[in-house]
Amino acid sequence: MKRKVCVVVTARPSYSRVKTALQAIRQDPDLELQLVVAASALLERYGGMLRTIEQDGFDIAARVYMVVEGENLAAMPKTTGLGLIELATVFDNLKPDVVITIADRFETLATAVAASYMNIPVAHIQGGEVTGSIDEKVRHAVTKLSDLHFASTQMAAQRIIRMGEDPASVFVTGCPSIDLAAEVLKAPALDFDIFERYGGVGERLDYSNGYIIVMQHPVTTAYEQARHQVTETLHSVRDLEIPALWFWPNVDAGSDGTSKGIRVFRELEKPKNIHFFRNMVPEDFLRVLYGSQCIVGNSSVGIRECSFLGVPTVNIGDRQVGRERGPNVIDVDHDRTAIRQAIQRQLDHGKYAQDTTYGDGCAGSRIADLLKHQELHIEKRLTY
Amino acid sequence: MKRKVCVVVTARPSYSRVKTALQAIRQDPDLELQLVVAASALLERYGGMLRTIEQDGFDIAARVYMVVEGENLAAMPKTTGLGLIELATVFDNLKPDVVITIADRFETLATAVAASYMNIPVAHIQGGEVTGSIDEKVRHAVTKLSDLHFASTQMAAQRIIRMGEDPASVFVTGCPSIDLAAEVLKAPALDFDIFERYGGVGERLDYSNGYIIVMQHPVTTAYEQARHQVTETLHSVRDLEIPALWFWPNVDAGSDGTSKGIRVFRELEKPKNIHFFRNMVPEDFLRVLYGSQCIVGNSSVGIRECSFLGVPTVNIGDRQVGRERGPNVIDVDHDRTAIRQAIQRQLDHGKYAQDTTYGDGCAGSRIADLLKHQELHIEKRLTY
Amino acid sequence: MKRKVCVVVTARPSYSRVKTALQAIRQDPDLELQLVVAASALLERYGGMLRTIEQDGFDIAARVYMVVEGENLAAMPKTTGLGLIELATVFDNLKPDVVITIADRFETLATAVAASYMNIPVAHIQGGEVTGSIDEKVRHAVTKLSDLHFASTQMAAQRIIRMGEDPASVFVTGCPSIDLAAEVLKAPALDFDIFERYGGVGERLDYSNGYIIVMQHPVTTAYEQARHQVTETLHSVRDLEIPALWFWPNVDAGSDGTSKGIRVFRELEKPKNIHFFRNMVPEDFLRVLYGSQCIVGNSSVGIRECSFLGVPTVNIGDRQVGRERGPNVIDVDHDRTAIRQAIQRQLDHGKYAQDTTYGDGCAGSRIADLLKHQELHIEKRLTY
Amino acid sequence: MKRKVCVVVTARPSYSRVKTALQAIRQDPDLELQLVVAASALLERYGGMLRTIEQDGFDIAARVYMVVEGENLAAMPKTTGLGLIELATVFDNLKPDVVITIADRFETLATAVAASYMNIPVAHIQGGEVTGSIDEKVRHAVTKLSDLHFASTQMAAQRIIRMGEDPASVFVTGCPSIDLAAEVLKAPALDFDIFERYGGVGERLDYSNGYIIVMQHPVTTAYEQARHQVTETLHSVRDLEIPALWFWPNVDAGSDGTSKGIRVFRELEKPKNIHFFRNMVPEDFLRVLYGSQCIVGNSSVGIRECSFLGVPTVNIGDRQVGRERGPNVIDVDHDRTAIRQAIQRQLDHGKYAQDTTYGDGCAGSRIADLLKHQELHIEKRLTY
Repeated sequence: MKRKVCVVVTARPSYSRVKTALQAIRQDPDLELQLVVAASALLERYGGMLRTIEQDGFDIAARVYMVVEGENLAAMPKTTGLGLIELATVFDNLKPDVVITIADRFETLATAVAASYMNIPVAHIQGGEVTGSIDEKVRHAVTKLSDLHFASTQMAAQRIIRMGEDPASVFVTGCPSIDLAAEVLKAPALDFDIFERYGGVGERLDYSNGYIIVMQHPVTTAYEQARHQVTETLHSVRDLEIPALWFWPNVDAGSDGTSKGIRVFRELEKPKNIHFFRNMVPEDFLRVLYGSQCIVGNSSVGIRECSFLGVPTVNIGDRQVGRERGPNVIDVDHDRTAIRQAIQRQLDHGKYAQDTTYGDGCAGSRIADLLKHQELHIEKRLTY
Repeated sequence: MKRKVCVVVTARPSYSRVKTALQAIRQDPDLELQLVVAASALLERYGGMLRTIEQDGFDIAARVYMVVEGENLAAMPKTTGLGLIELATVFDNLKPDVVITIADRFETLATAVAASYMNIPVAHIQGGEVTGSIDEKVRHAVTKLSDLHFASTQMAAQRIIRMGEDPASVFVTGCPSIDLAAEVLKAPALDFDIFERYGGVGERLDYSNGYIIVMQHPVTTAYEQARHQVTETLHSVRDLEIPALWFWPNVDAGSDGTSKGIRVFRELEKPKNIHFFRNMVPEDFLRVLYGSQCIVGNSSVGIRECSFLGVPTVNIGDRQVGRERGPNVIDVDHDRTAIRQAIQRQLDHGKYAQDTTYGDGCAGSRIADLLKHQELHIEKRLTY
Repeated sequence: MKRKVCVVVTARPSYSRVKTALQAIRQDPDLELQLVVAASALLERYGGMLRTIEQDGFDIAARVYMVVEGENLAAMPKTTGLGLIELATVFDNLKPDVVITIADRFETLATAVAASYMNIPVAHIQGGEVTGSIDEKVRHAVTKLSDLHFASTQMAAQRIIRMGEDPASVFVTGCPSIDLAAEVLKAPALDFDIFERYGGVGERLDYSNGYIIVMQHPVTTAYEQARHQVTETLHSVRDLEIPALWFWPNVDAGSDGTSKGIRVFRELEKPKNIHFFRNMVPEDFLRVLYGSQCIVGNSSVGIRECSFLGVPTVNIGDRQVGRERGPNVIDVDHDRTAIRQAIQRQLDHGKYAQDTTYGDGCAGSRIADLLKHQELHIEKRLTY
Repeated sequence: MKRKVCVVVTARPSYSRVKTALQAIRQDPDLELQLVVAASALLERYGGMLRTIEQDGFDIAARVYMVVEGENLAAMPKTTGLGLIELATVFDNLKPDVVITIADRFETLATAVAASYMNIPVAHIQGGEVTGSIDEKVRHAVTKLSDLHFASTQMAAQRIIRMGEDPASVFVTGCPSIDLAAEVLKAPALDFDIFERYGGVGERLDYSNGYIIVMQHPVTTAYEQARHQVTETLHSVRDLEIPALWFWPNVDAGSDGTSKGIRVFRELEKPKNIHFFRNMVPEDFLRVLYGSQCIVGNSSVGIRECSFLGVPTVNIGDRQVGRERGPNVIDVDHDRTAIRQAIQRQLDHGKYAQDTTYGDGCAGSRIADLLKHQELHIEKRLTY
């Protein structure tokens, strides 16, 4: 009897953080993969992740549209509530033996709550990290609802245990997103034309002599400032005059603040050196990332994948505060001058050495192996 | 400007665990109480709590019907999801400065998630305890979403801190339910006829020479066994032939298993010494409790209120495993002989001395005071 | 390419009204049946319909728990809203070519709305009838959302056309519930012991010398009176002292009013001649019905199936006002004397001749045939 | 005792269609207005209607965020389901005596269902019209759930009666949106600078020598073609080289198809004579409309308000098929040449005479008067 492993993917970044585990689960004759695609992962305007998943050859067991629109914060609990209602039906129909939830986006709590309330063991990828903001609350709440913990780093595993989880349920697997980076490193050349394949908006740039990448997400607890913050980054990048590939933020309560900032800047300033993209297939993105001189913004990619790839990172603001980091990161405030100077320092420095804090490239198969061999149970208690 | 304190009451037992805090908040000129009544607290068949709340003179800011029916486990996440959706609207309309969530029933997570996602500080009453079952997961997940912690015991407070919460946000207030018990102790005489006031089903019993109380809730992760378990207790109580006041279980996935067990037993065995009640006004219940010779079952009342009141408790099964207890508790398995013998031992022992592990009777005013003076914020990080 | 026909069954009576159509669809090589079971059809306490459906050999494509509990009227729109949300996901995953919705229960509107909003053609069984109460509004609203109309009677079909529907989309198929009755007439003998097979509560009755059946549903727009009304019927049936098989009402806002009335009457009056059942397998029920001397209450069964079976009916109150009826029906008010006298008159009269107003026994295959051959489209306009 | 009239506004155009009724209700000492703002009326990206409502001095009794995001059709039933759930709570808390629902947008069905299921009388503004598409189904379904009908035209009232509604419940009030137009006609001069007040995107145009208006909504049942259709209109308007004020479509399943078409056209063709607006305060919009030479697209404004204002209309495609129209309308297909020629004909023709088919300017006060004096009830039956 195969174990049925249900994985709920709710967003573009989550897919990257589970893809190699999905592949390993699918290939294992003792496991049956039930892939549920939900929330912004289904929506074209957040990156058309659905197409990528289908192109990667995964069968989709259920699709759950659940994003409630709103520029105010009520949209987040409503989205989560809708997900909770529908995932209960999905789990009731699929009857999985274990459910996997990924990281710390607000809507992932729906997966953990639905499964745990239905007495289905929950495995959590990427618990135990520290970042601040609402993600912090979500991540640790998910830990408390989970029965198996697949931590990315030693320190994260230690924190999970200190929170009172049974050490026998906590494993340092590394992060599956690093597996993708490791895979890309086997053939890292940028073998396609970025603009041809991905379009985007803004002028076509000559990136043959180097370029930077920008990814800046709104910080939900600082909703009002989102527009100001992105404008600082826009100015610093524009002023540097180096080709910049800018990726739109994913969905969050402040999303429209950030988007608005970008739209207004484009309209008024018509920056010649910035080209905007919605998203890329993960492998393409990693090649583009590896080929870049620096990544700027507040994405965790700069901390995680880039430490492994050795790509210099300028990390802005407090979104990533508390996350372990390799030597490749310079932290700065939301200040256009500070940002510009930090980018310049990184351009001068060049590539860093590989750092394996977040994984060695084998996380996916390690996770599949644990899902196959670990005893599954749903009863737990604080260890103290 | 008054601080607006929104309290969401979702069930009969939760009301007892917050009532004196509600009174203290209402009386405080610097605080404005926004009372939301939701879930089974609104439903007649779970005890007509709404009437009690109105009789206690509280204004109700919003009523939220959210209980999804179902004999299977999908009903719990759906109920929670529905609550999440609606509480988001309620909070958006009431705009509270702080939201209070109580204890560890599954649907209380909706309160904590909705408020925390909307950047409203969350205060949690009764975190840090250890019980097992789904309550365990819910309770600690709520802790991780909360910004202020009002623990009932020293040990609970220590556990919250060990889970990584800022010690400055953790307070030992005692449990407000003990306040009610302390109040009742001032005039503990049973000054009404139980059957006249509460009806119930079964024969009228002569309880003037002593009686016991039974409260046995289904254990959600052992759904199938609920009926068997309640039947063991029914046999032991019937065999003892002492007058027994039996309280119906509150809503849970296994509710119908337990209810069915009771109904079948009544139909087949027609027990003469057992009378069944739906519920009572908390103060009446505490008087009935104080006047009893023993409480039997798996309700936390036997552990908490009874340690303060000195009422002997026979605690059955593992629902209360891990909870601190006073000297008044004997633990037994779901075995009719063991239960009967334990009850007999408690009848022989009689009253115990007062124990203040769960509170000294001033929790409500302590909580109101903290809500008034504590700085409210929503940013937090693991302390390690 | 088979046409995918999705049928949503939400309650016990709906299943009887579609079962032979389900069989005909399943048997047709050009049609693929997608059966969705939802709402009270999934709940044991409304009759364990799920088991019956599985015993009948149907595969279930999705199960949707959606009944929101509540003794007040808010439960109905909430149940419908929940169904709407979840059926959207179900239809998005199943991608049916046509969706069938049945009759006029409040939650069936969820099926019609979800399908029509998703541009899926809707076929409605049992439109065009007139009854009053909320069912009346629901039924005609469903007609306005539907693209194909399978009416039970000529008069119903005429009404649908008068409401502005294209005559080419309206068909008199008869009601599939009559097919079941026709089937049962081929071997109508009651070949099982009712009490052995169905248990129920109350004393075992000797029904060999005749018996009556009672089915009384609460009328939602007269919520407060539900208890009074059922008590009148209870008195009249008790006073007659003839064996009575009484079926519990299905879910509705007033359900607990009616249930309460029955429970209190049983407790106080201990009627010796009434036995209470939750429900029966439809074929068994039809045999029990055919073998009875009279049916009493306000169920449409008395009007529809009984006109075909020739069983005398005492129809109480205004729940069935406006429905076409055969000669077998006597209408009375909610008055114990009037009810008793009408039952007596029917007992004196005995069986009536068969009447085919509601169908000739071939509705199911007629419906499957139309679903196979009719052009499906979603555009329509009032014909005037 | 004042009658409590609850009005649910879910979108920008609905507000215009009820505003004068809101004013008349508010001013009437015997009526109490309970205004609920919901769905896209709350969202900035659909036009910031909330601000307008507040500026007009209305108190808001409840805000309900309910728009579920999705480029596919599942978003519509989900949005409606969410609304149904939440409006049930809103009505349960507000306890209105009558609920008003407006026109035929898909989410208005939530208002009608929630109120009718809760036994609250429903009054419907703008029933009985004929348009095709999903609006057609919604509109007549709402009629079947409603107890009072406030029709805009004589013909609409006749259709409602023919659908089986009691003639005593049907009133020709005219459409309140015409009241706004009548008000504007008292001082029709365009006394502000359009670009200064409303910004928008595209070049500043000199509109002093005449201009046209474009409003083209996606047609939900022709999702795939939305982009093609809007592109035809864009070409014809660009080719005419007359200043054009183009208003973005409101939310619908095909919204992104239309929006995408507009965005791509702007990027590629950089049309010099088209300026894009999100929305305007209704009174400003009516002045801009009255000052225009022609309105182009498929908005009902071209049929309704413009017949009263005498503004020439080029109505494209079948979105308005079946609606009564005055002499001011020329109908054309989605063909750039046909559209261009029709616009030219209208420019040559100039203003038309006032037509009062859709109202005489007193609808609002007529509606308030009916709400005050009509007997309210919830029982109805087909009249045939």
